[in-house]
Order: sequence, then structure tokens, then C-alpha cells
Amino acid sequence: MTTRTIVLDHRPQGKPTPNTFRYETSEVAAPADGQVLLKTLYVSVDPYMRGRMSDAKSYVPPFEVGQSISGGVVAQVVESRVGQLPVGTLVVGNLAWSEYQLAGSRGLQAVPADAAPISYYLGLLGMTGLTAYFGLLDICQPKAGETVVVSGAAGAVGMVVGQLAKIQGARVVGTAGSDEKVAYLKNELGFDEAINYKTAGNLAQALGAACPNGVDCYFDNVGGAITDAVYDLLNKHARIALCGQISIYNATEQPAGPRPEPKLLKTSALLKGFIVSDYLPRWPEGVKALTEWYQQGKLKFEETVTEGFEQIPEAFLGLFSGENTGKAVVKVADPE
Amino acid sequence: MTTRTIVLDHRPQGKPTPNTFRYETSEVAAPADGQVLLKTLYVSVDPYMRGRMSDAKSYVPPFEVGQSISGGVVAQVVESRVGQLPVGTLVVGNLAWSEYQLAGSRGLQAVPADAAPISYYLGLLGMTGLTAYFGLLDICQPKAGETVVVSGAAGAVGMVVGQLAKIQGARVVGTAGSDEKVAYLKNELGFDEAINYKTAGNLAQALGAACPNGVDCYFDNVGGAITDAVYDLLNKHARIALCGQISIYNATEQPAGPRPEPKLLKTSALLKGFIVSDYLPRWPEGVKALTEWYQQGKLKFEETVTEGFEQIPEAFLGLFSGENTGKAVVKVADPE
Repeated sequence: MTTRTIVLDHRPQGKPTPNTFRYETSEVAAPADGQVLLKTLYVSVDPYMRGRMSDAKSYVPPFEVGQSISGGVVAQVVESRVGQLPVGTLVVGNLAWSEYQLAGSRGLQAVPADAAPISYYLGLLGMTGLTAYFGLLDICQPKAGETVVVSGAAGAVGMVVGQLAKIQGARVVGTAGSDEKVAYLKNELGFDEAINYKTAGNLAQALGAACPNGVDCYFDNVGGAITDAVYDLLNKHARIALCGQISIYNATEQPAGPRPEPKLLKTSALLKGFIVSDYLPRWPEGVKALTEWYQQGKLKFEETVTEGFEQIPEAFLGLFSGENTGKAVVKVADPE
Repeated sequence: MTTRTIVLDHRPQGKPTPNTFRYETSEVAAPADGQVLLKTLYVSVDPYMRGRMSDAKSYVPPFEVGQSISGGVVAQVVESRVGQLPVGTLVVGNLAWSEYQLAGSRGLQAVPADAAPISYYLGLLGMTGLTAYFGLLDICQPKAGETVVVSGAAGAVGMVVGQLAKIQGARVVGTAGSDEKVAYLKNELGFDEAINYKTAGNLAQALGAACPNGVDCYFDNVGGAITDAVYDLLNKHARIALCGQISIYNATEQPAGPRPEPKLLKTSALLKGFIVSDYLPRWPEGVKALTEWYQQGKLKFEETVTEGFEQIPEAFLGLFSGENTGKAVVKVADPE
């Protein structure tokens, strides 16, 4: 059996392009004892992967040039030499961007076929939802009546953050990049206010109007000018979950801007960078809570699903154009 | 009886000057019931007071133009109509920059005459020491063997931070603005390394050499370029106590620099702004611990003492020239 695999052709300078990736075709052997052969069903594309394409020290090791890209994948066992993972089992794990691959059982998590759409294990019930859960509930700790701002609110993490903040009883304000997204946040997800940062004009003024009582919690997916404006509205003892900086991931020079420290000092603010793996021991708690809220109808989720293995690079590149709503996944195959 | 009082003449733009202050002479009445007449012995001058001279929202309310400057003062009761504060009692409190003043008993803390030099209640055993204590032990939480960097290490807070970090078993690296200060930190206070930021040349290189295992904790009194260089050395799960930003307090335009968020995100760092009053309920714990370490000879302290009531403005302005070592106080009078 042969498989195609997407490998890193070279380390991109600035924005990646289709040429950043290369396809390789190789043979896949039959599984050895303790291995399964997996067929890829859904692939997750995420902004943090851009960081792994550079050689810089970061929170996850860089991808190697000439080696496969890897990330969250939902797959199905099609041959098995692992007793607990019979043929047909659906699993989620950190796997290669390959159509087929061998894997040991370690690091694979079997998931039910019927609790939710199976791609949700890459999103609402996977790293995306857990990122929202721990960043908001552990770092921001919003109280009822407080104001929570979420940047990148129509992104996969952001839309979960906003809904979780509503469940906590907070006033929720989001920023997003189109009027459609703004309408979606307010009308479908129950955000109290949402701002189109591209058309808002004076961002500080628009945010100030949306947050008449200041900002108690800020969940930052974006960085840059939006974040600068939020910092000016922080209340005393504000809490900031620093989750992403997508506005500057592709910068080729060191991004500069107004220094935040004087504002954080004046307000005795807490700012905490984090990655969901910091909370690994608490993941089961998070999945359980998210699943319950989903089944109670308290959490909606949105995906941008691209179809076809060969569309993975384009789907990844689309993350940086602000076109997607919700979690970007690529559907590679249906379960058998 | 008459007294001189130092009042705020106008709100300074940028660096304050002697003309920022004005002297007024007024009558002091005899104390009413529940009041004491205080004679000022020592006045504390502190960088945070610069913030109070501006009209901006900050962690403490601004001084009013035409009203007295106030801050930490050690005084002696010279007339009393408060039973618990007999004539002769030494007190510390937030008081006006006046030679004599009336005060109620609320907010005054009686201090012993013989446990330490009485000016230390403005420093090591007062706000200065408590700022070091809570910022380091509550926010940074250094573990034995970790590396702690302190900026403004020869300042009043910094020198206590460094010694407290040594008591915790950490490797301690300080930055300061002269070779004399550097020698003092290493030879007298037991810092493992100290860097003269004015002559170090490539600050990032010098800090990197002094911190071969990276930086686990950063106690920031200074901000600006030193802080930028420290951020590049942060280890995973670094903790930053944001205490002061003296390098940019006098800036007239919004200070700009490299954005720190990407670095804080990569390292899952914690950054917490604070002011010692955030810890008010825990002050007795802090004073007790600091007093014990002082009496055990584990904490040294240094003061720059200026003499004379009329020298208070110059002593305050001297804070911004980097000339002082340790806590700056002004001696106004001897106890009777």
C-alpha cells in the first residue's frame, strides 16, 4: 500500500506559501505487533503550526525540513495488532499529514462515533475547546457581571471562550474581521457585543463603547493593535490569558509597539502565556465539562471544512487570511 | 507654631524639576481630641510618586495641584490627645511633606526605637522591604537553584529582592548603573553576578553570559531595554514580578519597544503587575519575616540619607539620575 505524506520543504521566511510544502509518496508496511495501521479521516490545521516551521526555540519543537508535518488527526484503525484498538476504532492523536500511517497505541485516544461529529475531537472536544476552557477558567477566572474581551472571537478557540464566559455570567465582547462574523457572534453565540476591527475606525473608541465598565478579563488570540487598545481599558486586577498572537506570527522583523508594562503595572494585572499542554493532567476534567455543556445545548461550534488531502496546505494558509469562521479542518476520508 | 509644607506647584511634563514644588508656611493648631501633633523625622522619596504628580488614572490617586505632597514619613508625637500614642512615641504613616502636622491615630503605626534604625521603617521594614518580599515570594516564587534576575538591583527594593532570593537558594543576577554598585552587589550583598548596564555593551550578551541556565524569575524595577533583553532569556514557566518601570516614568510620549507577548507566550510565562498595597492583609507576616532575617544578619540594607527639610525635592529628583544606592530618605530632624 502507498501513501502520500506532506513534508516541510523549507523553513518559510514570513508568510508560508504552497511551496513551503512538498508531497512524498511512500510504501506503508503492515503493522508490527503493538501497532495499528491508521487511515486519516480529518486533519486539524492550526495557527501554532506556523511557529513549528521556524527553527526558533518555542513551546513545541520545530518541524524538521524534509520530514512530515504533524498535528491533530482523527483516524480510523484499518489493520490492528493492538488488542484494545480493533479494526474500525476511531482515534485522535498527534499524527503525520499522511493518508495512511502506522502508529503505536501510545498517545492515541479512542473516541466514540456518536457523541458528537467526529471532527469535533479536533475542535470543541479537543485541543481547541480545552485551550478555551483552561485559558478562560484557570487564568481569567471571570466572575458573573465582569467584562470579558476575546480577540479573534470568531476563531475556533475564541467562539468557545465567549460561550464559556457567558456560561459564567460575564458580559462578553468579541473582535472579529468581518460583519458576517460579528453578526454570527451576536446572533448565534450570544456575545453581548462584537466589533469588526477592520471597519471600526478608532478601535480604542469602539472597544471603550462596548466595555463601559472596563475590561476585567482578556483572552488574547491576536495581539498587535487590538491588544494595545484592550490594555487601555483594563480594570484593576485584570487577568489576561495570552493564547495566540496571530496578527504577528508571520512577521519577519521583531514586532514593535507600545510597551504594555506601564499599563499592566498600574492595574496590578496578571498576564499569563499558556499552551494547552501545560494542562495535560487536567484534560479529562476539561473534556468531561465541555461534553456536558455541548450535550446540554450550551455550547455551539462551527467548523470550516475543506475537502481533500491535497487541500491541506491551502487550508493551513487560509488561517492567516482571516477568512475562516471557527475551527479549520480538512476532511480526507469518510469512516469505513 | 508654624510649619513649612511642600506642595505640588503644577503637574510636570516629563522630568520634574525643582520648580515642580513650592514651599508654603502655615500655622499648626494644637491637637484636638483624638489627634496628635507630629514632628517629622524622616521622609521617604520614592519613584512611584512621579506617577501621582500626573493626572492619569493610576494605582494611587494623583496629588492635587496646590496641595501637599505626601508619602511615607517617620515622625514623633510631640503633643498628644490620643491615649495609645503618648508624647515621644515614634510612628510611621502616610503623611504630608511638612515639618509639623496634626494627625488622627488611624493609619499611624507605632514603631520601636531600638529594633533597627528608625528610618528602616521607610525601607527594609516598610514599603520597600514588603514590596520585595511579596513580589519575589508571592509572584516569582523562586526555587533553590533557579536563576533570578533583578533590574535596578542596587535600588532599595532591588537589593532586598536579591538577598531574599539568595535566602531561597537561587542564583541571583542584578543590573545596576555603575561599577561601584556592581561591586557592592557582588561583594557586600552576595549577588552571584551583576552587570553595569551602562557599560556592558551588548546587554543581551552580557545577560546571557551571566545566566547560562536561562532566567526563571525576573523582578523588574526598570523596564525598557534591560527588560527586553531579559525576556529573550526566559525559561519555560518563567515568573515576572512587574514592580516598577523607572526607565520610562518620565517619558512624555507612549514608550514603544519590541512586543513582549510572543516571548511570554512561547515560555508560558507569568507576568504580574503589583503594588505593595495589594498585599495589605499580609503586611504583618512580611514585617515579621523581614525583621527576623534582619536580626539574624541575613539582610543588609543601604540608605542614601539626605539631610534637611529643604532638600526633599532634590532628593526626589535624584531618584531619576541613577545616583542613589539603596533607599533614598531625607532626615528632617532627630527624635527628641
